[in-house]
Amino acid sequence: MNIDCPLPVDTEETIRLGHGSGGELSQKLFRDYIHPYIKNPWLDRLHDSACLPFAGGRLAFTTDSFVVSPLFFPGGNIGELAVYGTVNDLAMSGARPMYLSCSLVLEEGLPLKTLARVMASMGRAAAQSGVQLVTGDTKVVERGKGDGLYINTAGVGVLEHERAIEPGAICAGDRILLSGDIGRHGMAVMASREGLAFDTPLQSDCAPLHGPVHDLLEAGIRVHCLRDLTRGGLATALVELARARGASFVLQESAVPICASVEGACELLGLDPFYVANEGRFVVFVAPEDEPAALDILHRHTVSAASRTIGQVTAVGRPDVVLTNVLGCERLLDLLPGEQLPRIC
Amino acid sequence: MNIDCPLPVDTEETIRLGHGSGGELSQKLFRDYIHPYIKNPWLDRLHDSACLPFAGGRLAFTTDSFVVSPLFFPGGNIGELAVYGTVNDLAMSGARPMYLSCSLVLEEGLPLKTLARVMASMGRAAAQSGVQLVTGDTKVVERGKGDGLYINTAGVGVLEHERAIEPGAICAGDRILLSGDIGRHGMAVMASREGLAFDTPLQSDCAPLHGPVHDLLEAGIRVHCLRDLTRGGLATALVELARARGASFVLQESAVPICASVEGACELLGLDPFYVANEGRFVVFVAPEDEPAALDILHRHTVSAASRTIGQVTAVGRPDVVLTNVLGCERLLDLLPGEQLPRIC
Repeated sequence: MNIDCPLPVDTEETIRLGHGSGGELSQKLFRDYIHPYIKNPWLDRLHDSACLPFAGGRLAFTTDSFVVSPLFFPGGNIGELAVYGTVNDLAMSGARPMYLSCSLVLEEGLPLKTLARVMASMGRAAAQSGVQLVTGDTKVVERGKGDGLYINTAGVGVLEHERAIEPGAICAGDRILLSGDIGRHGMAVMASREGLAFDTPLQSDCAPLHGPVHDLLEAGIRVHCLRDLTRGGLATALVELARARGASFVLQESAVPICASVEGACELLGLDPFYVANEGRFVVFVAPEDEPAALDILHRHTVSAASRTIGQVTAVGRPDVVLTNVLGCERLLDLLPGEQLPRIC
Repeated sequence: MNIDCPLPVDTEETIRLGHGSGGELSQKLFRDYIHPYIKNPWLDRLHDSACLPFAGGRLAFTTDSFVVSPLFFPGGNIGELAVYGTVNDLAMSGARPMYLSCSLVLEEGLPLKTLARVMASMGRAAAQSGVQLVTGDTKVVERGKGDGLYINTAGVGVLEHERAIEPGAICAGDRILLSGDIGRHGMAVMASREGLAFDTPLQSDCAPLHGPVHDLLEAGIRVHCLRDLTRGGLATALVELARARGASFVLQESAVPICASVEGACELLGLDPFYVANEGRFVVFVAPEDEPAALDILHRHTVSAASRTIGQVTAVGRPDVVLTNVLGCERLLDLLPGEQLPRIC
């Protein structure tokens, strides 16, 4: 795949129901607005499935649908999100991402130039993540039955090691490392939705995370669990892991970096940054002896250059996540009952 | 997976935006309305990706989004369609279907009992197809930004042979076998959408096709290409294959079975049954010497019991599909320019 993806075409045409027919218009849509941006030998075969080499052992398989609104936001768009989101889910199980599918649900009336811009972003994001978009599908729904464009990506990766990197592998004493500041994606989308402006423009953190994960594993770091912080943010991810393992985590609130723009926007909108979505941040649970080496590796990657230890696993047996502040006050984190930021990814 | 799936729950609750939050409500939705119907050891781990054993060699990977309207139609519903559609795409590349993902885009206001009915169908359909739903995702969009429920399934299968079963393998002289009568799925959906009633109730042909495909391959039948007839029907599938291979096909119109109800409904609505969608029919391109043995195997499976030869590949070099009638008149099949039946799958 060529990282120098062709530029999106300029056209005034929009999606019609016929683009979903499977007939001549569907073929033209694929040929002119989808395929040029994501082409590779497997996709080029245009068969029902892509038939792909796979060395064997274990594979990782994941899926995500993306319904973010608006489609374009500061720092990214739905296309990049759809590639990075699935790449990151694969990376979080310790897999090397290989193949992605791309399925589009288009609303009648979507400008074709919007589609082309999104597909061009997907092509670039795939190339940057070392994956190929090998199979896909396109459906069209009537005006008012969608919201421009929904994307599903599923992904297949290869597990090149025997380790189980999962909640069940978390041990008492593990250090919890966070790869950077939190809340950027959620607040960038909210700011663009609400028309907020900041002194320092707020950009989504949307990025692929397979690089640092690969290096941690290759260096033999005893990584026990990985989790990217998406919907529900840092707090939701940690509460889910604590429940899945039945373990207690203690975090230092002051160790969790939050940039001033995110903090300001959260205050303005009455949101808690610990629950705000990220799309390029993750936590690493690592054996305490490996903490310095792990941080050293994370710091070598731009996407995780600001990594730091934010807490540790204090015990296994009772699931809770405690946040302690500089005054020593403790706050118990839990899942939010309902929706804080709808359609953030 | 247990084929005796629990019965869908009865509740008056509906989907709220909070069900898409990733928080407590999302967990409850998964726990009560999704997981019970599709559970298996991989899905139970609730990790970002499913980590799965895979023997190696070659894998097949495919995806489809389903936006059929209405969600329930005579002979099936969107859930069965989403499982069988992806199982069939894998089978058509000669793969044994293994793992499916399931990603839901739910519209605010969808009754939870509708979701539970669909998930129960997916669980049953997966068990019947010998696949497991190992990973998934759920998003919720506001009222008026969806249409109840869209489902994406992606699938991974294993290719247990070295053969290339694809358009490029089609040879002059190949016999073209069709697995049964055409047009049932499209007309069943249209009839239910338009409120048409027939003397003989029209049922979708929606069914998994991996069984007969497996037996053809295991018997060593020289299968050159397989294609299921979905959107665009028999005509679109054959035109696509003729173009992909650059080959001429000749079909006998009288050899293509169409039931009286489909024929009647098509006449009433002004549709051509050759272009109407199917969800449980396929064509097989087979070396002429293997035609009798292939038909014999196909006849042993209920889903392909009415298989017959409908034509042959006359030459390679110029792509066209010619339909000849009993009077010897010829008609050239082409892709339809636009949409005949929107949202049929």
